[in-house]
Amino acid sequence: MTHPNALEAARCGYIPKHPASLHENAVAVRSDPPTASSEDVRDLFPHTFDLPTIAFEASRTPMVSRVHRVGVILSGGPAPGGHNVIAGLYDGLKRIHPESTLFGFLNGPAGLLKDCGREIDGPTVDRYRNTGGFDLIGSGRTKLESEADYRTAIETARARKLTGLVVVGGDDSNTNACLLAEFARTVHSSLEVVGVPKTIDGDMKGASIETSFGFDTASKVYSELIGNINRDALSVRKYWHFIKLMGRSASHIALECALQTQPTITLISEEIAARALTLNDLVDHIAGIIALRSNANQDFGTVLIPEGLIEFIPEMRRLIAELNEVLVTGWQEFSALETLPHKREYIAGCLSPESAGLYRNLPREIANQLILDRDPHGNVQVAKIDIQRLFIELVGHRLHEMREANSYNGTFSPHDHYLGYEGRCASPSNFDADYTYTLGFTAALLLREGLTGYVATVGRLTRPAAEWLPGGIPLSRMMNLERRHGHDVPVVRKWLVDLNGPAFKRLEANRDLWAKETRFAFPGPVQYFGPSEICDRTTITLQLEAPV
Amino acid sequence: MTHPNALEAARCGYIPKHPASLHENAVAVRSDPPTASSEDVRDLFPHTFDLPTIAFEASRTPMVSRVHRVGVILSGGPAPGGHNVIAGLYDGLKRIHPESTLFGFLNGPAGLLKDCGREIDGPTVDRYRNTGGFDLIGSGRTKLESEADYRTAIETARARKLTGLVVVGGDDSNTNACLLAEFARTVHSSLEVVGVPKTIDGDMKGASIETSFGFDTASKVYSELIGNINRDALSVRKYWHFIKLMGRSASHIALECALQTQPTITLISEEIAARALTLNDLVDHIAGIIALRSNANQDFGTVLIPEGLIEFIPEMRRLIAELNEVLVTGWQEFSALETLPHKREYIAGCLSPESAGLYRNLPREIANQLILDRDPHGNVQVAKIDIQRLFIELVGHRLHEMREANSYNGTFSPHDHYLGYEGRCASPSNFDADYTYTLGFTAALLLREGLTGYVATVGRLTRPAAEWLPGGIPLSRMMNLERRHGHDVPVVRKWLVDLNGPAFKRLEANRDLWAKETRFAFPGPVQYFGPSEICDRTTITLQLEAPV
Repeated sequence: MTHPNALEAARCGYIPKHPASLHENAVAVRSDPPTASSEDVRDLFPHTFDLPTIAFEASRTPMVSRVHRVGVILSGGPAPGGHNVIAGLYDGLKRIHPESTLFGFLNGPAGLLKDCGREIDGPTVDRYRNTGGFDLIGSGRTKLESEADYRTAIETARARKLTGLVVVGGDDSNTNACLLAEFARTVHSSLEVVGVPKTIDGDMKGASIETSFGFDTASKVYSELIGNINRDALSVRKYWHFIKLMGRSASHIALECALQTQPTITLISEEIAARALTLNDLVDHIAGIIALRSNANQDFGTVLIPEGLIEFIPEMRRLIAELNEVLVTGWQEFSALETLPHKREYIAGCLSPESAGLYRNLPREIANQLILDRDPHGNVQVAKIDIQRLFIELVGHRLHEMREANSYNGTFSPHDHYLGYEGRCASPSNFDADYTYTLGFTAALLLREGLTGYVATVGRLTRPAAEWLPGGIPLSRMMNLERRHGHDVPVVRKWLVDLNGPAFKRLEANRDLWAKETRFAFPGPVQYFGPSEICDRTTITLQLEAPV
Repeated sequence: MTHPNALEAARCGYIPKHPASLHENAVAVRSDPPTASSEDVRDLFPHTFDLPTIAFEASRTPMVSRVHRVGVILSGGPAPGGHNVIAGLYDGLKRIHPESTLFGFLNGPAGLLKDCGREIDGPTVDRYRNTGGFDLIGSGRTKLESEADYRTAIETARARKLTGLVVVGGDDSNTNACLLAEFARTVHSSLEVVGVPKTIDGDMKGASIETSFGFDTASKVYSELIGNINRDALSVRKYWHFIKLMGRSASHIALECALQTQPTITLISEEIAARALTLNDLVDHIAGIIALRSNANQDFGTVLIPEGLIEFIPEMRRLIAELNEVLVTGWQEFSALETLPHKREYIAGCLSPESAGLYRNLPREIANQLILDRDPHGNVQVAKIDIQRLFIELVGHRLHEMREANSYNGTFSPHDHYLGYEGRCASPSNFDADYTYTLGFTAALLLREGLTGYVATVGRLTRPAAEWLPGGIPLSRMMNLERRHGHDVPVVRKWLVDLNGPAFKRLEANRDLWAKETRFAFPGPVQYFGPSEICDRTTITLQLEAPV
């Protein structure tokens, strides 16, 4: 009888496609960094800012290098391909010197702070090649952010005799990797720190980072499911599906899934913020399309809603900010109230008149979620809000009003979906398997060069993998100063959807057609063994955005 | 740029594997039917009960046949492979006589009653080969069940000059197909009616039907996602995922997905009914495992919950029956009440003391769902109850009590999922593509034989497709008399999970281990192009249950 893990077993034998420059002894070519964008940031990173951009090119000259001992951390939410970063890193270290070793810290940065980890040897790496998940060493959300943390980290590294540390994470984790790198130089530690850009959200990118890893696979898994739901809507012709998509702030996932599946309606948070739309506007927009389609006997459709949307609706953002304030200052009184109606009324009484009006008009379940589901800092947990159900309820009310006014005569049967945890640990697509392996290998090469405060990069990603360009840039070059808790701090910039970019423009050019006429697409499941145009295709976002 | 539908385009060229006996001019071999199980059922089907079992075998003798004109209906919820039933049927009819034609009634049985449909020609069939969904002609839940319906159907068939009708559906639709076949003979119509066993739920099976189509693909899509969620749980080690799985009554999907993914906990409705467990028992069971794992620092896991579970908990079944009664008799008074608390209190006052106690202890949202979401007949819509959220809430309370009693000291961070619409219209697996093509082709051959009241069957499904055995049995042979609305009516029996069968036994033998130690499996997405052991494997249920 076939074992359920037969596919995974077969995938373990897949050899990731990678740049020709990694086959031989890649040589680092240094080029001048671009003109500094921010003198303020430069001042904060005296040791790591004015470093060159690196590109690795194929060379026949054997490179001699010392033995490296490298630690690795997986930080934050998992993304498909994490295990291949480790595999590429391991293979790269062994290429540099056969006695190099790799040590994995367990469960994220906490493992580094507590000095909790495991040696990662060849047989272990082989078992995890091309698999999904972060379970080889686990992940975690603990942050390395205080000077005390950095001192502890450097002490652990010294005790473990580490020469380098690779931090696999998103914008926050890479920010902290850079701060750690700078701090190490400041205290004369020789520890070198390199980051790897990870996040399914797709918001860690920039001039040298064409995409973060995991975005490709996660958006394909969600697109598979949305395609199936599209087909269901088209087959039974009586349901409206409201689908919330993971992606903490940026709407890249919703945008990519829209281009892949051509749904009836797609909300893009960045556009809503830019146009300062209200919740009411959005409900009008959706109800209007539903009524229009109903007139043509199309009482069905799919609606994509990015998870972080609620914070991009200006009035909701204000409401949430006020709630966060009120729940801190009025916590004692609030907690003492016994019933939810009393709690809600108490809260409403503390808000500005506009926010109070908005809050009182929210469906009760959402009003409760806004005050009950708090994170440890007392803030609203936006990801836990059932925004897809909020829209179903509000749109249902609007359609009811329209029916009373004789402007709608259809049937509205909604279903809600949330696609998130189904995609973060999927088996990586060929693209993500190849890309992450190359990123890990490249991180090893950056360490060989004695570089620190860098992020591994791979350019020319829409070309065949053999032509990809591995390299690195100083992380501080990706930073801006942002105001946080009353201080200006350097952070790797989060890239939101560019409303002037080609991906959004393509949605904009097509969405009226997709709303009016049904033009669903059905991408199907990720394939590994078939024709290259199916198995190796990248996201549409990357195809549109990548430099030619 | 690759088109999102590139995979679908490639799949259109797939040639379904099918039995060798269909390559040539298959000849029907008739064998005596088994001894009648029910004389009462026989009496109701004088024209279609005592007919032989059919098996088609390869023959070199060319078969001469008249031109056939056949109508086809897709009935009920979609299932992967419906379009290949049509493709197989079309190819079979053309093999019988090149001038044979196929007519599709639109949107289910309603299309037959309203005479609304379309000709299905070769180019149309070619566009839909191996695709998911029922959108070629749509589906619907209208039932053909009254004598008036049967008269209308026969009149439509006569006007359309149909010689045969193929009904693709589950137990209800096949029951009605059989009643229509019998009725046609009674009124001297020559219309021949053949059924095809469809349902992702997997509950239309029996001695001659090894599995219904769609079960394979749907359970694989859900298993892909559960495997990804398993991997997420294992990677971040802090979430409990409660996953509701589609499947109206039977727990076949939950059972198959459990065997595929080896989750921490699986509830099987049939076992709960057999052991007469209470909601409290189940909450104790789940909370107990969570506490046990927490002691071993495993504050994570996955729980599979079949959609229909609530009706299999005896006390909940009684409560729902009472609610259905109360909401009919007390509708006027109930509707007049303005607030939900008043409505709930009114309802509780009308229930038996046991049911009232149970109802009052339910979380408020569930108590509301039980009285607000009614189907057109006033019955509770069980599928709409968020049973996964019910368990999260009740288990959370229980863990809170255990914490107070110092018997639990973990953190419980739950997430809820519902997997259903994501799987019904997926692109069919190779198995379902092959099986449905063979079923459709076989339906054509049954019509060629002039048989009516049959269901198409394919035997030996765990062997290579070349060795499959196409054939048919009289539908009435699958029937039992059941009491409905005060009358004994013949219905195709729904097959629930057999607690003495090998599939449940395998779960039973492993589940304690899976609960205590983490033994997650990760089946990954359905593959079409790779090694046969990955692309052509059947469900574990079928492998275990199929006759050798």
